[in-house]
Amino acid sequence: MQIADSPLARKLGSFVLLTDTELETLEALHRRRRRFVAGKDLVHQGQSDQSAYVLAKGWACSYKMLPGGTRQIVDFQIPGDFFGLRSILFRTSDHNVEPVTKIEASEILATDLLDAFQRAPRLATAVLWAASRDEAMVVEHLVSIGRRNGEERMAHFLLEMSARLMLVGQGDRTGFDCPLSQYLLADALGLSAVHVNRVLRTLRHDGLVTFQRGRVTFHNIDALAELAGFDATYLDHDGPLLR
Amino acid sequence: MQIADSPLARKLGSFVLLTDTELETLEALHRRRRRFVAGKDLVHQGQSDQSAYVLAKGWACSYKMLPGGTRQIVDFQIPGDFFGLRSILFRTSDHNVEPVTKIEASEILATDLLDAFQRAPRLATAVLWAASRDEAMVVEHLVSIGRRNGEERMAHFLLEMSARLMLVGQGDRTGFDCPLSQYLLADALGLSAVHVNRVLRTLRHDGLVTFQRGRVTFHNIDALAELAGFDATYLDHDGPLLR
Repeated sequence: MQIADSPLARKLGSFVLLTDTELETLEALHRRRRRFVAGKDLVHQGQSDQSAYVLAKGWACSYKMLPGGTRQIVDFQIPGDFFGLRSILFRTSDHNVEPVTKIEASEILATDLLDAFQRAPRLATAVLWAASRDEAMVVEHLVSIGRRNGEERMAHFLLEMSARLMLVGQGDRTGFDCPLSQYLLADALGLSAVHVNRVLRTLRHDGLVTFQRGRVTFHNIDALAELAGFDATYLDHDGPLLR
Repeated sequence: MQIADSPLARKLGSFVLLTDTELETLEALHRRRRRFVAGKDLVHQGQSDQSAYVLAKGWACSYKMLPGGTRQIVDFQIPGDFFGLRSILFRTSDHNVEPVTKIEASEILATDLLDAFQRAPRLATAVLWAASRDEAMVVEHLVSIGRRNGEERMAHFLLEMSARLMLVGQGDRTGFDCPLSQYLLADALGLSAVHVNRVLRTLRHDGLVTFQRGRVTFHNIDALAELAGFDATYLDHDGPLLR
């Protein structure tokens, strides 16, 4: 079945062994496929009646704007990720979502989710798992900004992206393609662009990782994980719990 | 019906108008009621086969320990909140949970959730809403540590706790009872205990809020919200979306 190869099916399939009915219900969620250009917000903080999406191709980022005009990037979304889920569950969206690259995504309405959960209740648990995993990532970003220095933050971030991408069949232990600019990295990691540049130079000089021309290359992934204190438990990649 | 008055029913009821079947299903989740003493971890980072809980009475906190021995408190739980939800969805718990006061909580197994979702699919959406709201709070804590100064962080935190407590019938616009020590506040807000003390003194001197002898008293809640840039959108308290 085609849909079993969708990034969302691959991701949820790592939590629950999906039946045919569940796969078909997931397929129905991909009905309203749309394309968006980079840099133009899809979900708007403070607005109501927004949609949620499942990302199929490309990268996006979710962020909050502060009254003073600064922003904090909360997370990046890759294929298989939901974004704007809170925008359909909440009356008013509490965040923005911007495509980092051109993207393809399927629009999801609140009623689509309700219908899916009615038809396939185990999917509800799987989506709750995915949302909990998203929360676990935000928790790690909080810990990074609260308790890790620049090198540790960058190392942790690159290892997390690598593990997430591998789950949906992109990249491997040697590295991954990464469309993020140093400005985006800075807004995500709570560093200045200059500091990001310095941190990446240090990690390269120490023989750990290189980020150049849109490609992250790991030279010593174990030493990088050691530096970051990276423990992938929070990504829950140990294999399906629900069979 | 007794259960309609449980903090969890009150909280989920603010998102979905619960039917009798849904209320009965929620009641079943409260079957395994247990008591725990303050200060002894209930959920353990790095361990598997942990339970989740719904808190009925008292306060708890979730936190991560870092390899160096420092800790970051991620959030506090109050009556009506789930905790350890990731501990039943993930094979291994990625965080710790510690009761701040003595607490009463109902233990929930993964199969309990599955059964509840099967019986009442709208509950799945309600629990997904609750989990999304938890994530939205962690996002705000990330924004606080990344982009807000000490006074703004504290103001934002106290206003968030106030709004959350009011939703489950505790406290009002004049203030709330708060069992948190300055050490817990420090570990949550990424400040030192000395800094917490100074920040609270400043807020009191400015006629905004007093935190003394286990009680937070708002003197000028509007000015406090202005200082914090507090926008309650992320708590989604605008009334039931699902009817």
